[in-house]
Amino acid sequence: MDAIEVIRAKRDGGELTTAQIDWVIAAYTRGEVADEQMSALAMAILLNGMNRREIADWTQAMIRSGERMDWSALDRPTADKHSTGGVGDKITLPLAPLVAACGAYVPQLSGRGLGHTGGTLDKLESVPGWRASLSNDEMLGVLRTAGAVVCAAGSGLAPADKKLYALRDVTGTVESIPLIASSIMSKKIAEGTGSLVLDVKVGSGAFMKDVTTARELAETMVALGTDAGVRTVALLTAMDRPLGRAVGNALEVEESVEVLAGGGPADVVELTVRLAGEMLEAAGLPGAKDPAEALRDGSAMDAWRRMISAQGGDPDAVLPRAAETLTVEAPASGVLSRLDAYAVGLAAWRLGAGRARKEDPVSPGAGVTLHAKPGDLVRAGQPLLTLHADETARFERALEALAGGYAVEDAAGERLPLVIDRITAG
Amino acid sequence: MDAIEVIRAKRDGGELTTAQIDWVIAAYTRGEVADEQMSALAMAILLNGMNRREIADWTQAMIRSGERMDWSALDRPTADKHSTGGVGDKITLPLAPLVAACGAYVPQLSGRGLGHTGGTLDKLESVPGWRASLSNDEMLGVLRTAGAVVCAAGSGLAPADKKLYALRDVTGTVESIPLIASSIMSKKIAEGTGSLVLDVKVGSGAFMKDVTTARELAETMVALGTDAGVRTVALLTAMDRPLGRAVGNALEVEESVEVLAGGGPADVVELTVRLAGEMLEAAGLPGAKDPAEALRDGSAMDAWRRMISAQGGDPDAVLPRAAETLTVEAPASGVLSRLDAYAVGLAAWRLGAGRARKEDPVSPGAGVTLHAKPGDLVRAGQPLLTLHADETARFERALEALAGGYAVEDAAGERLPLVIDRITAG
Repeated sequence: MDAIEVIRAKRDGGELTTAQIDWVIAAYTRGEVADEQMSALAMAILLNGMNRREIADWTQAMIRSGERMDWSALDRPTADKHSTGGVGDKITLPLAPLVAACGAYVPQLSGRGLGHTGGTLDKLESVPGWRASLSNDEMLGVLRTAGAVVCAAGSGLAPADKKLYALRDVTGTVESIPLIASSIMSKKIAEGTGSLVLDVKVGSGAFMKDVTTARELAETMVALGTDAGVRTVALLTAMDRPLGRAVGNALEVEESVEVLAGGGPADVVELTVRLAGEMLEAAGLPGAKDPAEALRDGSAMDAWRRMISAQGGDPDAVLPRAAETLTVEAPASGVLSRLDAYAVGLAAWRLGAGRARKEDPVSPGAGVTLHAKPGDLVRAGQPLLTLHADETARFERALEALAGGYAVEDAAGERLPLVIDRITAG
Repeated sequence: MDAIEVIRAKRDGGELTTAQIDWVIAAYTRGEVADEQMSALAMAILLNGMNRREIADWTQAMIRSGERMDWSALDRPTADKHSTGGVGDKITLPLAPLVAACGAYVPQLSGRGLGHTGGTLDKLESVPGWRASLSNDEMLGVLRTAGAVVCAAGSGLAPADKKLYALRDVTGTVESIPLIASSIMSKKIAEGTGSLVLDVKVGSGAFMKDVTTARELAETMVALGTDAGVRTVALLTAMDRPLGRAVGNALEVEESVEVLAGGGPADVVELTVRLAGEMLEAAGLPGAKDPAEALRDGSAMDAWRRMISAQGGDPDAVLPRAAETLTVEAPASGVLSRLDAYAVGLAAWRLGAGRARKEDPVSPGAGVTLHAKPGDLVRAGQPLLTLHADETARFERALEALAGGYAVEDAAGERLPLVIDRITAG
């Protein structure tokens, strides 16, 4: 077999065989298929597509490129969640300990932020002492102690995906549903979870801008998970406006702790409880403890404190704050008709909450606080947003990002329902 | 500007701007656009196409990546020919001195063979002493002495094309008419010729297997040449069977000398005279000496001898012969209904006349001699082909290549007319 034969087959609109897919992924991982050959193949896949069998084979080949984790030594089912990423999407933080408090194990491998969306690990690292990197044994130890663990994926999981993702990023081949779906699902299946709930975000602040493509991605991923023996369900959820009232690293940890304490913004609470219910059902624990009750009675908070402590963090520590703030006031009285997720995410990024390159540090205290949400009544001059940054020099470009990103009008604008749809297998 | 932006524009079906094309070719030549980015772009171009303006810009950008030759110091017009390559296509050898004998200068930069088609330089190197590599000054000297020069293109001409061609070869992105046309024409325009005749081969032994795609390639190249101020015309010619009766390096030189001596196979003579007439007309010399007459009166042969001598070759030397021969006999009596160009080309390649990798040597004596051409009557047992090789071990795989490649039947099969069509600008 050779790379040119595989490239030509897809280029000419054909279906790749299982043997071709297995070979090309393994040879690429070993360095025998060159980057320039894989990028040509990725472009051919982006333009000519892959069918369900090809995507499943592609995903399995990427899983086989590395190790596969195994939680069969645990005495309770495992449940995992993956979000395609959004602005203010801190849901993993309250969700993982909440689901643990209700009876499932939650082994959650997470990533860092790149661009305008934040990363779960960046957020948790604003907790003094907390460590993202754990060995497999340490991960198992935290799971047994706290019921939930959120940590960095080791380099042993789906190395083919890691290599291919970096390549797609520089070759204009990111936006392919077969490649996105297989990238996400190869990592999630390799993590060894028994069940998986996907939160596919839709809107300006999400990777998928419209419901149609988000639904296609969700259906593809649910099929992949199901074919691989993982009970998988997906929700399509709103990302036309930020989630909650905090966007940034420490700011989102604070809001997550509010939710675990029984408070917090209504949308964050609603989505957290809904996703927890989906995870428990997918894990085969439909009669488990009610998640809303676990938020009220403090058991979710207890799990959070155990989880943070077990990874070296101090759950009572004062979180970092940015030195400088700037308040954006409502320009008129009326209804906040629009507060665009992408504009807020870009502003938070420019304030220091995100990074432009993988090796850049992030500011733990930087970000945006929302004093009103779309649909709220506001008065001219009242605080609408607070910007947080380590230096005042960052405010100007953040304000530029926000220009046109919000509006106060006579009536509320249209917005997506928080949960748009639910996608299940077959 | 960045590479991802350019890739995305073409990926999404857009038209690349002149500025985008200029930038991406220049940055690729400098190494700032990576191979994996250029291969993704090449695949997007292959699948989504380029319009006439984009192809012209792409060609001009490749020309500007290197030097451009200038023959304005010469006192007569220049004419050049390019063939897309075929089996037994030795036409450049008699044609260049013939056109010189009729009054034009023929500065012909040629290549080496790869795969089943031969290369003009490989053929001429079977003449003892002959040198393919000349400096620009030496090239001008040979032109003034002989009126014609055939030599290797220096590395200074269209280096972007050289780099891109090597990349396309390993990434399944060769078969794109915009990329093929711009590759050929960037080199030909950079060579500085005033007029150009394209011989676009059609059939099993050619790169273009059918008349429709060959016509599209010819029209694209004629438009490119015309837009660049080069008087350009194309002929579509038959390559369903080999051209002439000799396929190989020294074997084709011998046949070329026969043509220059006023003999040789009818198809080689007809195509040589036709192409010479086209070149003289394109060069603005329609009333020049009649090419058929220049073959008869020895003036073309004189130009050949001056050209070979001026490049160190001995026109009277005995040419190398392969040590071993094997005769393939006609399996029945009847008409040779088919003698497939690709099968014969592949056999000659396996006999040692061609190379698998750029760095491989070729055997000067290896090849195939044809004792009959399609349409000829043959008797069972008469010699049909003679195979020539340096070792008998090569015959087996050459015979495998020929199996099914010829047939003797009751009636002649269909074949393409030698000259299928003529393509001119507008």
